[in-house]
Amino acid sequence: MSQDSFKQYLRTEFNIVFHDEDLLLEALTQRNYLNEHPNEPGRDYQRLEFLGDSVMQVSVAEYLFKRYPDWHEGQLTEMRIAMVQTRSFAHFSRLVHLNEAVRLGKGEEMSGARERDSLLEDIWEAFIGALYLDQGADAVQEFLERTLFAAIDTGFFDHFIDFKSRLQEKLQVNGAVVIDYQTEREQAMADKTQVFEASVSVDGHELARGTGKSIKDAEKAAARAALKLLEEK
Amino acid sequence: MSQDSFKQYLRTEFNIVFHDEDLLLEALTQRNYLNEHPNEPGRDYQRLEFLGDSVMQVSVAEYLFKRYPDWHEGQLTEMRIAMVQTRSFAHFSRLVHLNEAVRLGKGEEMSGARERDSLLEDIWEAFIGALYLDQGADAVQEFLERTLFAAIDTGFFDHFIDFKSRLQEKLQVNGAVVIDYQTEREQAMADKTQVFEASVSVDGHELARGTGKSIKDAEKAAARAALKLLEEK
Repeated sequence: MSQDSFKQYLRTEFNIVFHDEDLLLEALTQRNYLNEHPNEPGRDYQRLEFLGDSVMQVSVAEYLFKRYPDWHEGQLTEMRIAMVQTRSFAHFSRLVHLNEAVRLGKGEEMSGARERDSLLEDIWEAFIGALYLDQGADAVQEFLERTLFAAIDTGFFDHFIDFKSRLQEKLQVNGAVVIDYQTEREQAMADKTQVFEASVSVDGHELARGTGKSIKDAEKAAARAALKLLEEK
Repeated sequence: MSQDSFKQYLRTEFNIVFHDEDLLLEALTQRNYLNEHPNEPGRDYQRLEFLGDSVMQVSVAEYLFKRYPDWHEGQLTEMRIAMVQTRSFAHFSRLVHLNEAVRLGKGEEMSGARERDSLLEDIWEAFIGALYLDQGADAVQEFLERTLFAAIDTGFFDHFIDFKSRLQEKLQVNGAVVIDYQTEREQAMADKTQVFEASVSVDGHELARGTGKSIKDAEKAAARAALKLLEEK
């Protein structure tokens, strides 16, 4: 994707138009590209990555703080760590086509850097840094609501979170209880995968059920559903 | 110091008046205090500490990014780590009297928590979190300019930074050079401490001098002075 196509994509999809286009270009430029094009002005993405790293931290912290007024700091920290991890940034880099827009040196291009997670993580942070400088914290928040924050509701970060431990912690706050997980159902799907249903009960009373592609996933989903119930009370 | 005195201090010294005074109180309340006063509403500081931790990260990153436009990300990161470390937060907590204003449980008070660095670090972050929520990022920046950022110019963070390595890195960027440190002078002071003067030279030419209470400190000061010269060129 050319730089121009990417700018158009940002405008169409996110209503983002950079005032300082050089900042956007800087976020999308890898060092070896500049070494190979000594006449092109500008910098590589590394300083913006430094800034974007912290901007991600605070944006996610503020979002979680406001979205979950009843979570204590342990839960907030766990969720922030799940979200602000570079592994997930590579996913979102691809989602918004940063991998197609980045300018690489030839050697990097040949060695497949365009699809390498570590590069895509850096570029995500650099892009966020550039957006913050050019458009401010609110614009970053809006952009993240369409990408990273939206992924909370699809359960994207769930496999990083230990819902069973969290449920146990919550249930035992007023003393010991017996928490029991049961596999309730096991069903073969048309594509030959299996689906499991698990229940979680407390002192013999069923609290919630969940399904998943393994018993472990189903139990986790049950714990997550139980937590949701308890938080709504 | 009572809560009222502390509010007056914030107004007089920093021109800060909280819109939501409960937020300020939350930042200054330790959990055991609430356990001992079950009829008092409100929360302890821990959620605000979670938020303030990230606010500190981004405030410092943005400040350094803008103040040092020529630093590469390695230097920026080194300085940020030196500044955003909890050890220094305890110092600034005392500087603005957060240690006097915090509300502690009796047991904590008796065990000396009011002067314990780990508590003062938490309270600093919680206060920054409350300030951010109540007054926004600009107010935090202004407050830090009067406290943490001002300390850059007094050399407060210097002992966390390896100036000799940084000078070597800078001087050898275009090939090997011979860097030599010499102790030039050693002087006994009236209070029986010693003061040392060291010089640093490159390929036989003296670049700068520095003084300190040990040879190591003097060499570090010389390296710092040399870096300053090179950055001004």
